[in-house]
Amino acid sequence: MATTNLFGDPAFKDGAFTSPDARVRAYALQKTMRAMDLGAELGAKTYVFWGGREGAEVDAGGNALDALARYREALNFLAEYSEDQGYGYRFALEPKPNEPRGDIYLPVVGAALGFIATLDKPHLFGLNPEVAHETMAGLNFVHAVAQAIDAGKLFHIDLNDQKMGRFDQDLRFGAENLKTAFFLVKLLEDSGYDGPRHFDAHALRTEDEAGVWAFAKGCMRTYLILKEKAERFGRDREIQDLIGAYKVQDEELARLTARYSHANAQALKALEFDREALGRRGPGLERLDQLTVELLLGVR
Amino acid sequence: MATTNLFGDPAFKDGAFTSPDARVRAYALQKTMRAMDLGAELGAKTYVFWGGREGAEVDAGGNALDALARYREALNFLAEYSEDQGYGYRFALEPKPNEPRGDIYLPVVGAALGFIATLDKPHLFGLNPEVAHETMAGLNFVHAVAQAIDAGKLFHIDLNDQKMGRFDQDLRFGAENLKTAFFLVKLLEDSGYDGPRHFDAHALRTEDEAGVWAFAKGCMRTYLILKEKAERFGRDREIQDLIGAYKVQDEELARLTARYSHANAQALKALEFDREALGRRGPGLERLDQLTVELLLGVR
Amino acid sequence: MATTNLFGDPAFKDGAFTSPDARVRAYALQKTMRAMDLGAELGAKTYVFWGGREGAEVDAGGNALDALARYREALNFLAEYSEDQGYGYRFALEPKPNEPRGDIYLPVVGAALGFIATLDKPHLFGLNPEVAHETMAGLNFVHAVAQAIDAGKLFHIDLNDQKMGRFDQDLRFGAENLKTAFFLVKLLEDSGYDGPRHFDAHALRTEDEAGVWAFAKGCMRTYLILKEKAERFGRDREIQDLIGAYKVQDEELARLTARYSHANAQALKALEFDREALGRRGPGLERLDQLTVELLLGVR
Amino acid sequence: MATTNLFGDPAFKDGAFTSPDARVRAYALQKTMRAMDLGAELGAKTYVFWGGREGAEVDAGGNALDALARYREALNFLAEYSEDQGYGYRFALEPKPNEPRGDIYLPVVGAALGFIATLDKPHLFGLNPEVAHETMAGLNFVHAVAQAIDAGKLFHIDLNDQKMGRFDQDLRFGAENLKTAFFLVKLLEDSGYDGPRHFDAHALRTEDEAGVWAFAKGCMRTYLILKEKAERFGRDREIQDLIGAYKVQDEELARLTARYSHANAQALKALEFDREALGRRGPGLERLDQLTVELLLGVR
Repeated sequence: MATTNLFGDPAFKDGAFTSPDARVRAYALQKTMRAMDLGAELGAKTYVFWGGREGAEVDAGGNALDALARYREALNFLAEYSEDQGYGYRFALEPKPNEPRGDIYLPVVGAALGFIATLDKPHLFGLNPEVAHETMAGLNFVHAVAQAIDAGKLFHIDLNDQKMGRFDQDLRFGAENLKTAFFLVKLLEDSGYDGPRHFDAHALRTEDEAGVWAFAKGCMRTYLILKEKAERFGRDREIQDLIGAYKVQDEELARLTARYSHANAQALKALEFDREALGRRGPGLERLDQLTVELLLGVR
Repeated sequence: MATTNLFGDPAFKDGAFTSPDARVRAYALQKTMRAMDLGAELGAKTYVFWGGREGAEVDAGGNALDALARYREALNFLAEYSEDQGYGYRFALEPKPNEPRGDIYLPVVGAALGFIATLDKPHLFGLNPEVAHETMAGLNFVHAVAQAIDAGKLFHIDLNDQKMGRFDQDLRFGAENLKTAFFLVKLLEDSGYDGPRHFDAHALRTEDEAGVWAFAKGCMRTYLILKEKAERFGRDREIQDLIGAYKVQDEELARLTARYSHANAQALKALEFDREALGRRGPGLERLDQLTVELLLGVR
Repeated sequence: MATTNLFGDPAFKDGAFTSPDARVRAYALQKTMRAMDLGAELGAKTYVFWGGREGAEVDAGGNALDALARYREALNFLAEYSEDQGYGYRFALEPKPNEPRGDIYLPVVGAALGFIATLDKPHLFGLNPEVAHETMAGLNFVHAVAQAIDAGKLFHIDLNDQKMGRFDQDLRFGAENLKTAFFLVKLLEDSGYDGPRHFDAHALRTEDEAGVWAFAKGCMRTYLILKEKAERFGRDREIQDLIGAYKVQDEELARLTARYSHANAQALKALEFDREALGRRGPGLERLDQLTVELLLGVR
Repeated sequence: MATTNLFGDPAFKDGAFTSPDARVRAYALQKTMRAMDLGAELGAKTYVFWGGREGAEVDAGGNALDALARYREALNFLAEYSEDQGYGYRFALEPKPNEPRGDIYLPVVGAALGFIATLDKPHLFGLNPEVAHETMAGLNFVHAVAQAIDAGKLFHIDLNDQKMGRFDQDLRFGAENLKTAFFLVKLLEDSGYDGPRHFDAHALRTEDEAGVWAFAKGCMRTYLILKEKAERFGRDREIQDLIGAYKVQDEELARLTARYSHANAQALKALEFDREALGRRGPGLERLDQLTVELLLGVR
C-alpha cells in the first residue's frame, strides 16, 4: 500500500486536490504522481487517499460544488497516470466527516461510494473505511462496511474504536464498543474479505513503551477472540434456529419478486396478504440479541 | 409527487422492502405498485421512498448485507413496473440516519447516491434530501446537497431545521441555523435547481392554529429573505473581490490538469512550485465569512 | 416510589412548574400535592420528578432565568408541603437533555446537583439518573453517577441503554455498550448503593409478548452476569496489582496535602519534584483496560 | 485573571489534582501556589482552573469517585492558601466534556455548580463557561449560563463558537450559530453581568496575519451588532407585547404559591382549573421566534 501526505504541508491548509488555488492543486498532483512512481517501484498495488484537508470551515467561497469537480478532475487524472505508466493501482478513498477541517468533503463511506460512481473509471476506485471516522458521525459502521462490500468496493479497512460525536480518538480495537467490534469481525470473516486487517489506532497518550506494546497486542488479541466467537455464533444451534425462524422464506414469492415480468407483477398485485398476522408476528430479536450478548460475555 | 406509507402498518415494523420476511417484502411491493397506479392516474411524475422502517436495532440477524440486496431487488422491480406501465416515474430516495429505527439503511445522502449506482437503471433514481435528516448525523447539509447536484440527482428537497445529534425536530426553516439556511438557499438558487422547495416541517407542539399559520408563513418568509440576501451577496463588490482573489486561477496549469495526457503528466512533474509561498498565502476566509455574517445581520 | 404525570396533559405543553402561565404552574402544584397525598397513603417515601416538559424550543420568551426561579419556587413549596403533612418524602430529580422539548432545563446530572444546592432544603433532594438520558448528551454516565454518589445524592437509578447523540432509545440494559454497563454495575455494587436497580427500558417495537419477556429477563440477567464479573475483577490478582501500582501513594505527601495549614503549604512549596520522571512513568492503563475487556469476554 | 498550566507538562498526562499519583497531585498544588503568588503580585483577583487533563479514557482504575475526592481536597487546600496569604482570589472553574481526555471530570456547567456545593468554601468558587465546551455536549449554552447566573456563579465567560458533537473548534464568535449568539449576548447584557467578555477563540488555520486581525475584529463587531439588536428587541413593541401575553400573570395565584403556608396549600388544592382551556391556549412562540429571526436578519 502506498499513499501521499497531502495534509501536513501548510501549502495544503485549505485543501490539496480541492484547493481553490490552481497552483496548490497542480502541486498536489505532482507530489502524488511522484509518490505513485515510488510506490510502484516498491510493488504497491493499493493507493490510499485520505483527503484530510479536502474540506471547509467557511462555505462563503462557494466551494462545495467546485471542490467536487476538482476532486474528480484529480482522481481521473491520476487513474489515467496509473494506467499510462502500467502501475496497475487500485485506489482506496478513506472518508472522514471532520477534523482537522470543520467539514471534510466525502465525509462518510456512502458519500465516497456515490462519488466514485461519477468518476471516469469507477472500477479502479474503492474504499478504505475506518471505524473511528464513520462512528464520529454517529453512523453504524457495520452497515457502512456492508454497503462497501455490497458494492464490491471494500479495498482496505482501518480498525480502531471511538465514541460517537467526539474528536477522532483512534482507540484500541474493541476498547469502546465490543458488540459493534464483534459484528464487524463477523462481517469481515463471513464475507470473505481478503484484504488486510489494518489497526490504525494509537496507544493512549498516558502510556510508556510497555503500554504501547500492550495496546498493540490488545488490538490483535481482541480481533482474534471475537473471530473465535463469530465462529461459535455460527455453530450455536439455538442462535442459528432463531435466525432461521427470523428469515421467513417463501419460494413462490421469491420466484415472483426476484425478477420483473409483467406476469409476475400482475400475480403479485392479485395476492391477498394477512396484514394483521404479519404485524402480530414477533421476530425474536430481543432473544437473539441477548444470546449474542451472553455469547460475547462468555457465559454461553 | 406520490409516495406509499411503508412505515405505519405494524406489518412493516421490521422493514418493508428489506424485511427478513418474504411475505412482508412481497406485500410492500404490492402496496407500492397499487399506489403507483393511483399516482400515475393523478399525474404524478416523481415517486418518493422514505424507508423509515428499513433499518435495524439488532445486527445479530445478519441483515446488513441481505437488506441491501433486497432493497435493490425491490427498487429494480418497481423501476421495471413503472416502465412497463408507461408511468414515466423518477424515483427519489429520502435518506435518514435513525428514528424510528436504531440505524436506518442508506442513512445519508451519500449512501443513497452510492446505492443508486448499483441499481439496474440508475438514471431513474435520485434524491430527496432533508435538512433535518442529514443534520441529525452532524453532516454539512450544504455539502450533501452539492454532492446530489454534482451527480445530477437532486430530484426534490425537504426544507426544515434541526440541531445536530438530536431526535428529528422538523423545525421551521431557518429556526436553528441561519447561516446554513443561507448557504443552502444560495446553492439552490445559484445551481438552477428547478424542483419544488418543499417545507417538510412542523409547528412546535405548543402552538394553536394561529401559531401554525405563523410557522407556515415563517418558513416561506425566511426562504425569500435569504434568497434576496443571496442575490445581494452576488452583487456585493467587496465580497466578490475576495472570492475572486480566493480562487487563484492559472491558465497554463488548468490546461495541463484538465485532461490527462502523457505529455501533460510529464510537464506537470517537471514544474517547480514555491511550496513555502503557497503555505504562507492567506485565503481571506475569516474576512469573507465575517462579511457574510454582517450581510446576514442586515448591517451590510 | 410515587410520581405525577406533568407531561401528558396538553396544559403542560410549555412546561408545568416552569410554565410562563401562572395558572399552569398553580395547577401543576395542585396536581402534585394531590398525588403526594395518594403516594403517602400507599407508603411511598421517594418522590420522583421527571420534568420532561420543563424546557424550551424558543428562547425569545426570555424564560431561561425565570424558569429556574419558578422551578425553585415549586420545589421549595412542595418540600414544605411534605414536611407540613408529615409525609417524610425524599425527592429525586430525573435529568434529561432533550425530547420531547428542544432543550430541557437541568439537562444532566450535574445541572440537577447544582440546582439542588440553591433550594431551601437541599438535604431533601437528590437524583434519579438514567443511563439513556446522560448518554444522549454524550457524557460518561459512570462519572455522572459517581458525582451523585460523591454528593450523597443517588436516591434512585434508571437502568437501560442508548447510543450517544440520538433520540431516547431506552434499550435493554447492556444492549449497546457492555463496558459502560460493567463499570456502572461495579460502581453501584462497590459503593454500597442500597436503592432499587430500576430497569426503565422498553422492548424493541418489533417484538411480540415473548419478546417482551425475553427483554425483561435479559435486563436482569445481564446485570447479574456483570455483577459476578465485578466480583471477579475485585479478586483478579493481576488486575488488582496493576491498580495498586497505578495509584502511587506517599504518606508524607498525603499528610501535607490532606488538610491545609500554613506550615504544610510552605513545606509543599519547598519540595523538589522530578518532573521528567513523573512524565516518563507509564500508568499501565492499556494493559489494565485490555484485561478488563478479556474478563468481560469471558476469556480470563 | 491568573491561571496555571496544568496540562502541557507530561507529568500531568493522567491528571493534575486528580492524578492517581500522589506526587503529581502534590506537584500540581505546588505549581499552583507559586502561580497564585505571582498572580497576586500582579494584582489578579480571579483565578481560573481549566482541568483539561482531569479526566479518563479508562475507568478500570476505579478513579471516578477518587478523582472527585482528590479534586475537592486540592480546591479546598488552595482556597485556604488564598485566604491565608490574603490574596482574596475568587476561583473560576472552566468545564469541558472531552478533549484532550476521553471524558473530563466536571464536564459541563451544571456539574461544576454541583461540585462547588460540596467544597468547604463554596462562596469563593464560580464558573468560567465557554460556548464551545458546553456546545460540544449538545447542550443549550444560554440555559447553562442562565443557571450559572441564577446561582450567582458567573465569574467569567469565554466567547467563541462551535458545532455540536465535534472536536473543540474555538470558532470566531457568532461564526456558527447567530441565534444562540444573540440570546447569549442578550442574557449577558440584560442580567447585568459585569465581568469580562473574553473571546477565547482562534482564527482558522488557513489564515495569514491579516486573517487573524479580521478574525479578532469580527468577534468584537458581531458582539456589538448583537448587543444593539438586543436593545432593539427590548424596544420592539410587537415583540414585547407577545412576550407580555406569553407570561400570563395572576396576582392571587402568585400570592398563594410564592411562599408555603398550610393555608396557601389548602387554598391551592381547593381551586378549580379549566385544564382544557389551559391546553388549548397558544403561546405564540412560532410568531415570537420568527420576529426574532427577522430582527436578526435586519428586515425588522
